[in-house]
Amino acid sequence: MTSLAMIEAAAGRLAGRARRTPLLSAPALDEIAGRRVLVKAECLQHTGSFKFRGAWAAISALDPALRSRGVIALSSGNHAQGVAMAARSSGVPAVIVMPRDAPRAKIEGTRALGAELVLYDRANDDRDAIAAELADARGLTPIRPFDDPAVIAGQGTVGLEIAEQAAELGVSRAEVLVPCGGGGLSAGVALALEARAPGMRLRPVEPEGFDDTARSLAAGRIVGNDRLAGSICDAILTPAPGRLTFPILKRLCGPGLAVTDDQAMRAVAEAFARLRIVAEPGGAVALAAALFHRSRIEADTVIVVVSGGNVDAALFRTALERFAP
Amino acid sequence: MTSLAMIEAAAGRLAGRARRTPLLSAPALDEIAGRRVLVKAECLQHTGSFKFRGAWAAISALDPALRSRGVIALSSGNHAQGVAMAARSSGVPAVIVMPRDAPRAKIEGTRALGAELVLYDRANDDRDAIAAELADARGLTPIRPFDDPAVIAGQGTVGLEIAEQAAELGVSRAEVLVPCGGGGLSAGVALALEARAPGMRLRPVEPEGFDDTARSLAAGRIVGNDRLAGSICDAILTPAPGRLTFPILKRLCGPGLAVTDDQAMRAVAEAFARLRIVAEPGGAVALAAALFHRSRIEADTVIVVVSGGNVDAALFRTALERFAP
Repeated sequence: MTSLAMIEAAAGRLAGRARRTPLLSAPALDEIAGRRVLVKAECLQHTGSFKFRGAWAAISALDPALRSRGVIALSSGNHAQGVAMAARSSGVPAVIVMPRDAPRAKIEGTRALGAELVLYDRANDDRDAIAAELADARGLTPIRPFDDPAVIAGQGTVGLEIAEQAAELGVSRAEVLVPCGGGGLSAGVALALEARAPGMRLRPVEPEGFDDTARSLAAGRIVGNDRLAGSICDAILTPAPGRLTFPILKRLCGPGLAVTDDQAMRAVAEAFARLRIVAEPGGAVALAAALFHRSRIEADTVIVVVSGGNVDAALFRTALERFAP
Repeated sequence: MTSLAMIEAAAGRLAGRARRTPLLSAPALDEIAGRRVLVKAECLQHTGSFKFRGAWAAISALDPALRSRGVIALSSGNHAQGVAMAARSSGVPAVIVMPRDAPRAKIEGTRALGAELVLYDRANDDRDAIAAELADARGLTPIRPFDDPAVIAGQGTVGLEIAEQAAELGVSRAEVLVPCGGGGLSAGVALALEARAPGMRLRPVEPEGFDDTARSLAAGRIVGNDRLAGSICDAILTPAPGRLTFPILKRLCGPGLAVTDDQAMRAVAEAFARLRIVAEPGGAVALAAALFHRSRIEADTVIVVVSGGNVDAALFRTALERFAP
């Protein structure tokens, strides 16, 4: 079970390794949202998403003998790159099992980081079987994308930084909107805020039609999504909240929010124009909720995490073409 | 004459006002450049460029009675937004005299910051006369874009941060490439590095055909450009180095570099894909030089300033369409 002590220990291992990403703002965003908006730009993290934090936290916590044999991860993208970079920085091999139709930016990014890629066909292959066989044969340790205490602790360092950076601006009360897939980032951040910024409340944000976490929170138990494809927010499509993450979310989070693909794309364009950062659609859902669901938010200040920026150029061009302000 | 003490004083006045922008990196950029590349992302500064620093430094140094009457600036863009935001934060009025054909992102950005805009026609109007008349009539203080000791001191705070952030990474020797228009940023950074990172050497970077600073450095005296339009790097097209900036550059800088518009656009696309930041072409010339003029650089580490990110969406889309990796 992840604790504040684990998050602080992860922060210690990440010091000088992960970037302390900036908390950005722009008058034009405040105006659209009708309140103060602060943006934690995790798209500026190594490999372009918060995933590096959890990957490094998990790999650096492994027994050295085990670690030296290498790690393996199943991921369509951001987790893959985070694990690849963390493994490279640790000098250990990484094998990434990835769907053949993942965004090109994510496939190329992972390969460029020196990982061994094993591509599979979503329709016909059993990815779990592929990964298990490789792990057994080579003694590789699986690095799970969210349902792992060390990974949750690593993502929680985002929450420690939010608490500190908001305090520097005199902000202690806020709703904190976080893009949510399996819930590793949301759970870690919620635990950190509980201890360091108790006046803040976390709200997970998902794509419409894939709001398993919002529905699970409303139901009080884990509920899954009906489908797993059909949103441009590929980074945060997961079958259901995790067994470890959900109890944390249930205890600490406010109601979930859901945004349309168009709202996510519009947020990508606003982040481009107002903050000069590159967000991917899935990484921009929390910003979209802050800007376009203002009546669902109560606090005078909203803090949003932009969780990733690994977007293919063609999709980014489309966002600008349709929605640039 | 700007001194280290003035830069340090400006840093004190800017503390909690300007952002300490991150020093970014990506393995793919190191590979292209053939050496370590560190990117000071001033496009993430308030208003999307370093200009906020100099504007705040100058306005905060004014006599309060004078300051309260307001300020005026002549600018096609980034300086305008920097002055508008600094004036707004100080609670004083700002009048900006701007060419009617400035990039729309810059006109809208300035207006959104509450400045009074006076648009002129480059072909037929005398902008200096317009500004002088307004300044006289209303008692406004001109905030010059570069040839002002307080402005140079404000921009020099970028150099203090580079020295600190590079030291945290163990880097003390490097060539520091800086986009150069009138030379305010280059002069300020060069002065800061002289004192705080004497193992670093600054090299100004300009667009080909508008390399007045490089030619002035080579000639040992101020030489102007033949023309003032015809590059997409609008942010850094100036007639000649400044009277105050040039002596500093002459004393402290290495030879200037020049890049083509296509190289600047390619650097914009690389910054998008590898760093997830939005750079404008003029702001990306130093990155372009690091990536595409590697034989002109000697040091094992090159630090580049990305000086601004206020680019119209259409131009950014073109950069991605043509050059996204």
